[in-house]
Amino acid sequence: MQIPWQDRPAGSKAPMWRYSENPIIPRDLLPDSNSIFNSAVVPFGDAFAGVFRCDDQNRRMTLHAGFSKDGIHWDINPETIKFDCDDAEIGEWVYGYDPRVTFIDGRYYVTWCNGYHGPTIGVAWTTDFKTFHQVENAFLPCNRNGVLFPKKINGRFAMLSRPSDNGHTAFGDIFYSESPELQFWGRHRHVMAPAPFELSAWQCLKIGAGPVPIETPEGWLLFYHGVLRSCNGYVYAFGSAILDLDEPWKVKYRSGRYLISPREIYECAGDVPNVCFPCAALHDETKGKVAVYYGCADTVTGLAFGYIDEIIQFTKETDIQNV
Amino acid sequence: MQIPWQDRPAGSKAPMWRYSENPIIPRDLLPDSNSIFNSAVVPFGDAFAGVFRCDDQNRRMTLHAGFSKDGIHWDINPETIKFDCDDAEIGEWVYGYDPRVTFIDGRYYVTWCNGYHGPTIGVAWTTDFKTFHQVENAFLPCNRNGVLFPKKINGRFAMLSRPSDNGHTAFGDIFYSESPELQFWGRHRHVMAPAPFELSAWQCLKIGAGPVPIETPEGWLLFYHGVLRSCNGYVYAFGSAILDLDEPWKVKYRSGRYLISPREIYECAGDVPNVCFPCAALHDETKGKVAVYYGCADTVTGLAFGYIDEIIQFTKETDIQNV
Amino acid sequence: MQIPWQDRPAGSKAPMWRYSENPIIPRDLLPDSNSIFNSAVVPFGDAFAGVFRCDDQNRRMTLHAGFSKDGIHWDINPETIKFDCDDAEIGEWVYGYDPRVTFIDGRYYVTWCNGYHGPTIGVAWTTDFKTFHQVENAFLPCNRNGVLFPKKINGRFAMLSRPSDNGHTAFGDIFYSESPELQFWGRHRHVMAPAPFELSAWQCLKIGAGPVPIETPEGWLLFYHGVLRSCNGYVYAFGSAILDLDEPWKVKYRSGRYLISPREIYECAGDVPNVCFPCAALHDETKGKVAVYYGCADTVTGLAFGYIDEIIQFTKETDIQNV
Amino acid sequence: MQIPWQDRPAGSKAPMWRYSENPIIPRDLLPDSNSIFNSAVVPFGDAFAGVFRCDDQNRRMTLHAGFSKDGIHWDINPETIKFDCDDAEIGEWVYGYDPRVTFIDGRYYVTWCNGYHGPTIGVAWTTDFKTFHQVENAFLPCNRNGVLFPKKINGRFAMLSRPSDNGHTAFGDIFYSESPELQFWGRHRHVMAPAPFELSAWQCLKIGAGPVPIETPEGWLLFYHGVLRSCNGYVYAFGSAILDLDEPWKVKYRSGRYLISPREIYECAGDVPNVCFPCAALHDETKGKVAVYYGCADTVTGLAFGYIDEIIQFTKETDIQNV
Amino acid sequence: MQIPWQDRPAGSKAPMWRYSENPIIPRDLLPDSNSIFNSAVVPFGDAFAGVFRCDDQNRRMTLHAGFSKDGIHWDINPETIKFDCDDAEIGEWVYGYDPRVTFIDGRYYVTWCNGYHGPTIGVAWTTDFKTFHQVENAFLPCNRNGVLFPKKINGRFAMLSRPSDNGHTAFGDIFYSESPELQFWGRHRHVMAPAPFELSAWQCLKIGAGPVPIETPEGWLLFYHGVLRSCNGYVYAFGSAILDLDEPWKVKYRSGRYLISPREIYECAGDVPNVCFPCAALHDETKGKVAVYYGCADTVTGLAFGYIDEIIQFTKETDIQNV
Amino acid sequence: MQIPWQDRPAGSKAPMWRYSENPIIPRDLLPDSNSIFNSAVVPFGDAFAGVFRCDDQNRRMTLHAGFSKDGIHWDINPETIKFDCDDAEIGEWVYGYDPRVTFIDGRYYVTWCNGYHGPTIGVAWTTDFKTFHQVENAFLPCNRNGVLFPKKINGRFAMLSRPSDNGHTAFGDIFYSESPELQFWGRHRHVMAPAPFELSAWQCLKIGAGPVPIETPEGWLLFYHGVLRSCNGYVYAFGSAILDLDEPWKVKYRSGRYLISPREIYECAGDVPNVCFPCAALHDETKGKVAVYYGCADTVTGLAFGYIDEIIQFTKETDIQNV
Repeated sequence: MQIPWQDRPAGSKAPMWRYSENPIIPRDLLPDSNSIFNSAVVPFGDAFAGVFRCDDQNRRMTLHAGFSKDGIHWDINPETIKFDCDDAEIGEWVYGYDPRVTFIDGRYYVTWCNGYHGPTIGVAWTTDFKTFHQVENAFLPCNRNGVLFPKKINGRFAMLSRPSDNGHTAFGDIFYSESPELQFWGRHRHVMAPAPFELSAWQCLKIGAGPVPIETPEGWLLFYHGVLRSCNGYVYAFGSAILDLDEPWKVKYRSGRYLISPREIYECAGDVPNVCFPCAALHDETKGKVAVYYGCADTVTGLAFGYIDEIIQFTKETDIQNV
Repeated sequence: MQIPWQDRPAGSKAPMWRYSENPIIPRDLLPDSNSIFNSAVVPFGDAFAGVFRCDDQNRRMTLHAGFSKDGIHWDINPETIKFDCDDAEIGEWVYGYDPRVTFIDGRYYVTWCNGYHGPTIGVAWTTDFKTFHQVENAFLPCNRNGVLFPKKINGRFAMLSRPSDNGHTAFGDIFYSESPELQFWGRHRHVMAPAPFELSAWQCLKIGAGPVPIETPEGWLLFYHGVLRSCNGYVYAFGSAILDLDEPWKVKYRSGRYLISPREIYECAGDVPNVCFPCAALHDETKGKVAVYYGCADTVTGLAFGYIDEIIQFTKETDIQNV
Repeated sequence: MQIPWQDRPAGSKAPMWRYSENPIIPRDLLPDSNSIFNSAVVPFGDAFAGVFRCDDQNRRMTLHAGFSKDGIHWDINPETIKFDCDDAEIGEWVYGYDPRVTFIDGRYYVTWCNGYHGPTIGVAWTTDFKTFHQVENAFLPCNRNGVLFPKKINGRFAMLSRPSDNGHTAFGDIFYSESPELQFWGRHRHVMAPAPFELSAWQCLKIGAGPVPIETPEGWLLFYHGVLRSCNGYVYAFGSAILDLDEPWKVKYRSGRYLISPREIYECAGDVPNVCFPCAALHDETKGKVAVYYGCADTVTGLAFGYIDEIIQFTKETDIQNV
Repeated sequence: MQIPWQDRPAGSKAPMWRYSENPIIPRDLLPDSNSIFNSAVVPFGDAFAGVFRCDDQNRRMTLHAGFSKDGIHWDINPETIKFDCDDAEIGEWVYGYDPRVTFIDGRYYVTWCNGYHGPTIGVAWTTDFKTFHQVENAFLPCNRNGVLFPKKINGRFAMLSRPSDNGHTAFGDIFYSESPELQFWGRHRHVMAPAPFELSAWQCLKIGAGPVPIETPEGWLLFYHGVLRSCNGYVYAFGSAILDLDEPWKVKYRSGRYLISPREIYECAGDVPNVCFPCAALHDETKGKVAVYYGCADTVTGLAFGYIDEIIQFTKETDIQNV
Repeated sequence: MQIPWQDRPAGSKAPMWRYSENPIIPRDLLPDSNSIFNSAVVPFGDAFAGVFRCDDQNRRMTLHAGFSKDGIHWDINPETIKFDCDDAEIGEWVYGYDPRVTFIDGRYYVTWCNGYHGPTIGVAWTTDFKTFHQVENAFLPCNRNGVLFPKKINGRFAMLSRPSDNGHTAFGDIFYSESPELQFWGRHRHVMAPAPFELSAWQCLKIGAGPVPIETPEGWLLFYHGVLRSCNGYVYAFGSAILDLDEPWKVKYRSGRYLISPREIYECAGDVPNVCFPCAALHDETKGKVAVYYGCADTVTGLAFGYIDEIIQFTKETDIQNV
Repeated sequence: MQIPWQDRPAGSKAPMWRYSENPIIPRDLLPDSNSIFNSAVVPFGDAFAGVFRCDDQNRRMTLHAGFSKDGIHWDINPETIKFDCDDAEIGEWVYGYDPRVTFIDGRYYVTWCNGYHGPTIGVAWTTDFKTFHQVENAFLPCNRNGVLFPKKINGRFAMLSRPSDNGHTAFGDIFYSESPELQFWGRHRHVMAPAPFELSAWQCLKIGAGPVPIETPEGWLLFYHGVLRSCNGYVYAFGSAILDLDEPWKVKYRSGRYLISPREIYECAGDVPNVCFPCAALHDETKGKVAVYYGCADTVTGLAFGYIDEIIQFTKETDIQNV
């Protein structure tokens, strides 16, 4: 299995760079889709699988499973995922979006923004990306951007999330929570707040975890999005942070600079202009490469590449945590 | 007389498709115009005439008459329309925009959003697109998107409209009203409200009638715009509904999917990004074709095509009225 | 029949003064009422009748008929008024509040703020305050404070109203409209806007007609409310204007000073603090006296008195229409 | 031990009535207090104890323990409660307000709105009202009005709460959650939303649980507050609901009418006008009496009385749950 | 000359206490006044003079001169002050409110919130309270609460002010500025910001200087107002600060507790409920007494008393500047 | 020295036209820059120098010096400007943006929006674009768009500015102020307000001075930006005005039409879509040519050209000052 990759463009010194063939998933890959973005992919067997946010032409938000040999060309099921759930009230579908997929101890866990009297964190697991078993919502509404760590911490499931309101939330800190069994959650700890405007403006309104954190000797490497509010609305960019391995609510380093901010026309124009929103990352441990999947303008899906070592270095060099 | 037309692109299954030469009217067709969009056209003699919203470079909104042999290439008068009006207070021009033109019993009726201590529905008629006779405003402010039916209903003029406020109105239902003589209006009936977010999000903030309704055996075919509010502002798309022929305030079917939503760069970028706003439709009864004129990004004018039968079928298949 | 009255307090030079026994109607006159205010009374036979806004303890707004020998002590029916209506859609009760009652040609017409997909002006008539016949709503939503003139003007029914939005409207001008038969309305004319802050701040946010206008040789005497927004919310006071007898949309004089503004504790504290909201007036033509009924703090009903001649004089002396 | 009591006033038919000597706790009972309100009391030995919200003259919100022989005259400790907590991050005091106290299996549990990067539900327990042991916050921010049931349900601790935002939240539903051990919470269920404006306006903006629910043969009797937004701010009143004994997230009945709404001057004027906010109830099972403690205008504390049977009857008669 | 005074009430330990005969100036002291409050008084000859904010019954804000023998009973001129001004554009009256009067080197300087394309700081001087000479506005709009120091600092006039916006400003810091000649202003220095909510909530939204600072051996004693925003609007209270004598932009101490916060009914109810707004102070250096004049509910004027030594002590004890 | 220039495109009659090679400065001219725009250039020796707003990839706003031979190709120092300042409090850098540079009597004065407890006008001077001497901020916060005149007026420095608030200010008038010595400022005069919507909508929300005014026989030629608020945010365009030579606060003519409004993709898409924001102009007196530098979409820098005579003529012909 080989992750998608393209070398750094000649002359560039940027810590991450875009795939030249972006967007890799067009808005109308499905015949009825309005847009496909903010989607979650993982290695699966000797290929890749994923859970995709596909808004249909009612502009309803739905989740679909998909498969790919190379991580670039995808077959997405036209049918939405149907989650099995023992509890009818929890299993009733209202809406779901912005999924993440985490592999832990033989199961692929899906977390997503799930409609239950407001947005909260839906949780389900699968072993085959065909049957999905939905369990209890992790939190009370309103919450978004729930991301599981890829292994238990302190013997418990561990999740990052961002408490929200029920609209276009104008605030947002990242918190950490634990659960013994994915039913009851607690031990809530604050991780990080938006940055001061004078220090790092691209992340001064709200922030949220992106892909599943990547374990490195330096700590958990977290890609996270940040939002700046201009007079013409929100701008979503993303940067990186290093969290303590054992106490992941402790931030060791946090990039003052963004890694990717809207610049290409497919990021600047679309259903929501000026959005780069990462939801998944594939990494090649042996070669130290990482490929980040990110939603572009809430319309299509793009890829960006980098070396983990360099990104860690970048995070330290531009650090705003220890200033 | 032949309406503008272009066959469905190969491979497309969409119920409507854009004209490949869009936009047909550029923003600077007039030497002083800032933008030309949201405009109303009708068959006129063996050709076409229309009333056009042309914003000048003061960004003042004005109405102009225009003429075309083929419905695609237009001659627009550089002078604004001067409305004759017996009542000086009503006839005093403040601003006017988003016109519709309806042919009823030998007269072309123009309705538009007319400034009179707030936006309301201006009404005038012409037989030659040279002299326009303005009558009473239909309603008290604030109101927009007034569209006359092309024949009397219950022996009276009949109009759809959308009560508004005086700003960038964040709500909006379509209502139906009748008038014996275009002076006094009443018998107000509610037609439809924005759709629930979970059902059809593109039309969940506000909706408004588009072109003059088209009579079909199934009922009145209404193209209407709907608005979704993202964190970066409003997105205007349009869909279709079938209204009862005799009691047009009763909705038989209403499309959950949009027909056209901003996707092309001339729809996504411009003075108001992400706007597709239909104001007129030409149809060929014998061939069952329809050509819809719609404003793009509040900047230029585009065309989209479809078959009436297919659009009716689409409206039924995606119906959210009877769920 | 003698209208309620109390002489001007010794030492006062005010153009109007409060009844010393205010409030005349307590909030709990009905066993289930939360509040009784903004109510409409008229002479009826040799006594008085009225339509009362009684909010129940669900805080639902309902209308009740009431009767009084002296205009001060009232018997209010515990049952809400049931309006007969030929059209089920119009006759379906949602909510109703802030009634006015106008006697024209043998019928008592009730107008009120009526819920129909937003607030609009409901219209009904009665001859006995037992059976009420509801006709078409006068306008599209959103509208409030619809007040009929007590005789036809230009041979038509004539109404003042205030276009609104669907919430705690932060704007509001008074308009004039006519109807041949109380079914269709038109000939809409602007009457007056809020005053400039520097000129008369108590009426600088929004204004609305109060009681039925009183015909005088000088013109129609209109009591109207005005609203000022402080950092702690709205303050409702009322003043007076003189409208042209034949063209009542023309304002001859308009008081810069208020007549009554919240000052007493029953006006300053209650469900909505700082509200004096007039809805009805009884006048004695021979003696030139007038008694104004006004809602206090959206909780109880008060009375204020004055001489018509003096109020006209006050309106001229403090006039802001001709500055 | 005898709960505070006063018989229903002569002539009254109200389901609850105020204590004639209200407020029982003045704003300056402590020498440095600005206000004392929204406070929680329970039987304790043969007398009463409580946890009190005392805002100091910095307007900082703090919690104090207090003791009383009769439930009416209180000795409140001038020192704020110091919570013991094993985890320094959780135990760090930011602010705390609106406490509730619940007796379960030999311990008095205190829940309150606790500042931890936004308001959330703090939890602690005591046996003597001297030493308080703080455990994990129940939920992620933002949350308020956390109220424990007085016994375990399904073998777990059970709590009602109201997800919020970080300001003067303009929305609010009541949710139900369970915890095996007061550390991890889950199995979140929706209980009830604000009522439709047309049905019961006093509770149409947001609602929140009040005192600890009281077990009755009919179900859990819950007093809860509701909020209406007028043009001059929020009005807090309270009513009652009956929850299923075994599945308390199921509402059997819910009062359309309020029980107590601001009416007396100490409720209508104060630091926050028009607030009646219940936080505790004492009940006498043998006599079927209940005494509700409620905050008045966010300034002082009042008492209201009633018979449990009558309140249940009232809840059924005015029910809006089964309409 | 003896300043108004009343001894501390028995049993009170408060650093300041209200005059038992408050309000000393009723809202209708002038026949046409709506309210008289936020007014500035100084010793004048062997008696007292002042400049008073009197809102008339148009709710226009105007300034009036007044005189008193005892500082409690006032004669206020019914005519508004007419300011002489060499520059017609500056001298044109729009509105003026919230005056302060400062005696420096033989002249009484009046500063007030002056309407000039938005609120700014008007400046004038008088020697007799009959003729007032207006000079340049101190700053660009928008600004309010301009207060001169009673002697020059660094050889220049010195002023505190609060930059604002044009509405019910939701923010506000105190700044210090100097001027050589009352025409040009500069050397702007930040003095203090609103306090953190957790530290001193009554002053957490905005703050502004009150009376002219009083020179003491400890520094300049400044009374200043602070604002807290509840769900029902703003609450204005006041506290004290000690500024460095030579560099008055340096705050030595600042009270965490308020001195006076709305509590009496004439402070809690009125045109703007819950306002205590100090604009002037008389002090008796020999006896160490101070009498503070403050506006109550934007309606009437009250008096509060204290000893300067005690207030300084209170400021130090409750200090939040050095935490 | 020759200013940048390109002849008017064939067929165009526009008073100004864009450079065909726009943008002249790409967003990533510096290796770390996110964007370079709203920048100020002047003749310097026989070439050009400038001060540039370069936002870095933290989205921090910083100022850089730059040099160019032809005014089109620029070398920008990667290091930010370090301002020398005698007063540490004033010299402490928070943020700075939107510079202007004015040459007066041998010194190049830089003015910019400077962070000091809110945005205000920073002032500094240089003779070599290497060493910059910072003096007092011109005004209290909040203020933006401070532009010095290129010579003294009435013997004093003269500046245009726009009082603001601390966010995305939704209002803004241009004012004029004078200073004897760049330390104290006064004699504030109102210059112009936003235009009425009906007259010139592109400048109806707020306006602000652009480049340093150009002296002509007709008066000072001022390019200024204006803002229109659509439902999707702000649109920045620019027009021209002629100010009186001796009393520059008096506007002789003001263009109703814009000169340049967002139309090209590099103006319509970027970090802030739909922005054309002029900050500098080079003019060739002998040939009557002018080259205007303007920020595009808050991302890159563009150039537009015109003839001064024609622009003056355009300003007179489209004048809205004398209507």
